[in-house]
Amino acid sequence: MASTVITGIGELPTQDDELGTLTGAAIVLDGDRVAWVGPESQAPEGDERVDVEGRAVLPGWVDSHTHLVFAGDRTAEFAARMNGEPYRAGGIAVTVEATRAATDEDLAETVRRHVDEAAAQGTTCVETKTGYGLTVADELRAARVAAGVADEVTFLGAHLVPPGEDADDYVDLVCGDMLDAVAPHVRWCDVFCESGAFDEDQSRRVLLAAKKRGLGLRVHGNQLGSGPGIRLAVETEAASVDHCTYLEQSDVDALAGSETVATLLPACDLSTRQPLPDARRLLDAGATVALASNCNPGSSYTSSMAYCVTTAVLQMRMTVDEAVRAATWGGARALRRETGDGAVGVVRPGARADLHVLDAPSSSWLAYRPGVPLTHAVWRSGRTVA
Amino acid sequence: MASTVITGIGELPTQDDELGTLTGAAIVLDGDRVAWVGPESQAPEGDERVDVEGRAVLPGWVDSHTHLVFAGDRTAEFAARMNGEPYRAGGIAVTVEATRAATDEDLAETVRRHVDEAAAQGTTCVETKTGYGLTVADELRAARVAAGVADEVTFLGAHLVPPGEDADDYVDLVCGDMLDAVAPHVRWCDVFCESGAFDEDQSRRVLLAAKKRGLGLRVHGNQLGSGPGIRLAVETEAASVDHCTYLEQSDVDALAGSETVATLLPACDLSTRQPLPDARRLLDAGATVALASNCNPGSSYTSSMAYCVTTAVLQMRMTVDEAVRAATWGGARALRRETGDGAVGVVRPGARADLHVLDAPSSSWLAYRPGVPLTHAVWRSGRTVA
Ligand SMILES: [Zn+2]
Ligand SMILES: [Zn+2]
Repeated sequence: MASTVITGIGELPTQDDELGTLTGAAIVLDGDRVAWVGPESQAPEGDERVDVEGRAVLPGWVDSHTHLVFAGDRTAEFAARMNGEPYRAGGIAVTVEATRAATDEDLAETVRRHVDEAAAQGTTCVETKTGYGLTVADELRAARVAAGVADEVTFLGAHLVPPGEDADDYVDLVCGDMLDAVAPHVRWCDVFCESGAFDEDQSRRVLLAAKKRGLGLRVHGNQLGSGPGIRLAVETEAASVDHCTYLEQSDVDALAGSETVATLLPACDLSTRQPLPDARRLLDAGATVALASNCNPGSSYTSSMAYCVTTAVLQMRMTVDEAVRAATWGGARALRRETGDGAVGVVRPGARADLHVLDAPSSSWLAYRPGVPLTHAVWRSGRTVA
Repeated sequence: MASTVITGIGELPTQDDELGTLTGAAIVLDGDRVAWVGPESQAPEGDERVDVEGRAVLPGWVDSHTHLVFAGDRTAEFAARMNGEPYRAGGIAVTVEATRAATDEDLAETVRRHVDEAAAQGTTCVETKTGYGLTVADELRAARVAAGVADEVTFLGAHLVPPGEDADDYVDLVCGDMLDAVAPHVRWCDVFCESGAFDEDQSRRVLLAAKKRGLGLRVHGNQLGSGPGIRLAVETEAASVDHCTYLEQSDVDALAGSETVATLLPACDLSTRQPLPDARRLLDAGATVALASNCNPGSSYTSSMAYCVTTAVLQMRMTVDEAVRAATWGGARALRRETGDGAVGVVRPGARADLHVLDAPSSSWLAYRPGVPLTHAVWRSGRTVA
């Protein structure tokens, strides 16, 4: 691949601690890496030159929480909820049935379609999860399908106890044969620690079994009420605990004193008519915050990271800078990909060439112009994808 | 212009009382009008055939409240607000200064750019207002510029008392020379009835002076607190009262017993960190509700009607059907354009050929997939504009 010099940048919030937010900067991409960042007047030559005419350039969004290996339709369940019915985690079983019945090709196509849809909106790194299989064979298949398309794959056999099965027997299966089969294909293991899904002891068993096999940990916690999820994530040194909609002071303290990222999923909270999480309290306490879409057909069927950022600023009292950072560097940190060669969520030499050019002079417009599609161009691993 | 037969429609919420919401329907466009609506199997021939492959087709959005004749930039004021500063109507003066200094061509280009941006998102009928001139010459110029681009133009000389001027003297000017000059170029007159802008007596004077000259009336009311705006709008038989963020029971009763539309502007409320209006209470009382963007550089810089619909469903307890109706037929009703030849906000024979094809099987996806750009194609007056 040729090198490309990007000039005319209006604002460049690099998310790199030393570089900070630059104006008048240029970026050189070489192959699938960022080769150089600095003042436009000092930019080296390249094979190609692209003038973005005063537009803001951001690291591509890092969406660190999605569930894309699914089949079936839950539009009717959504519409019923908007007519007043409460959200129930049991709706997941509907997707499980459809997913088991789908072909490998259909599932791969669904993941690809959503990853491409997200890329067209500036998302250049996507984590996705298994969790609609819930048998050894179906979870293994989901992991393989996901690994062929997504940047990061998480095993979520502990998404729901399959209807009619005994919870503890199912946890035995997850911790035994299922993990044995799936672990070689994934980097992460996650558990839905919530009343109606897995309790504290069951969740801990899954997390510790995964850790023993060398997997990194993630937790779904505190989505529908206060509970042990956040505490357990910090205790097991999970990279991230996701949702955090209900926070006790002890949860905030635990997060602030840990390396566990609090990943907030505002589109999910709004889509299930839950309150929005108190991002301000987490940030002020010193916790690391990420924003992600939780794209899935039940509780949050959006691929729009811009919508999450807009909501975070307008309704969660995050500043624009905090929200953009949470949706780029924060997501990367939640995936432990924010440093080193090929880092994502950051624009610096050696990082992956993932850029999001906005049809806006500054990233403020993501909140100043809610709902207006602002993606002008996207590079992912050095290739233009939008 | 040739006739076009549109087939393969997944869902067609016509907003016509007799036709209702159709499936398996086809639409024939002839010139700038809808010529026929009915079962696809009975559709007449046309010069052209367009298969929308299962997508939902809606009337184009009717954005009945915008302020597009402006110049200058208020991004910094927005960012400051997101860092904790309250919204102040006085910020309007910043735009007034920049607008007066702009050329006619610049102003026209700004209106056109925003109307086109909205059209690309499915908005096919736009009302816009003067109100950043505040002198006879500048208000007249704004009205002429707007009339060249927008579907409906509203005189809003009573937007703000120009800094340093006496309020009652300014109202005299608005009701006299300014109305004389501008009235021939506009259909509507509006007043910002709010503490910090115009009080009840001043607002009434403006409205009655406009009515005497044959203009239709609109009111900005109850945006920043309870007040006389809604009551005054009903009393003067205004077509619409806009904002309605703060509602007393007497306001709800007045609206329910009137022909005055309650136009809600949720993107504005979120952009100024105000509460969202109680749409449910208005609907349940029997008031007519419209949704509009209030696109303007100060308090609501969005052209996205989809964002307003999404917010109305997820956060204001409107059903999808209610929100879609409010953003199409409701906006048309607020502009008294929902009936007759060339009606907008509705798909029926004789209506203007304004259609919005969604990248979705049903309009539910506007709320089910928040933030995802869902506009697939747009016809405005029979021409494809997106
Ligand atoms: Zn999830
Ligand atoms: Zn307004």
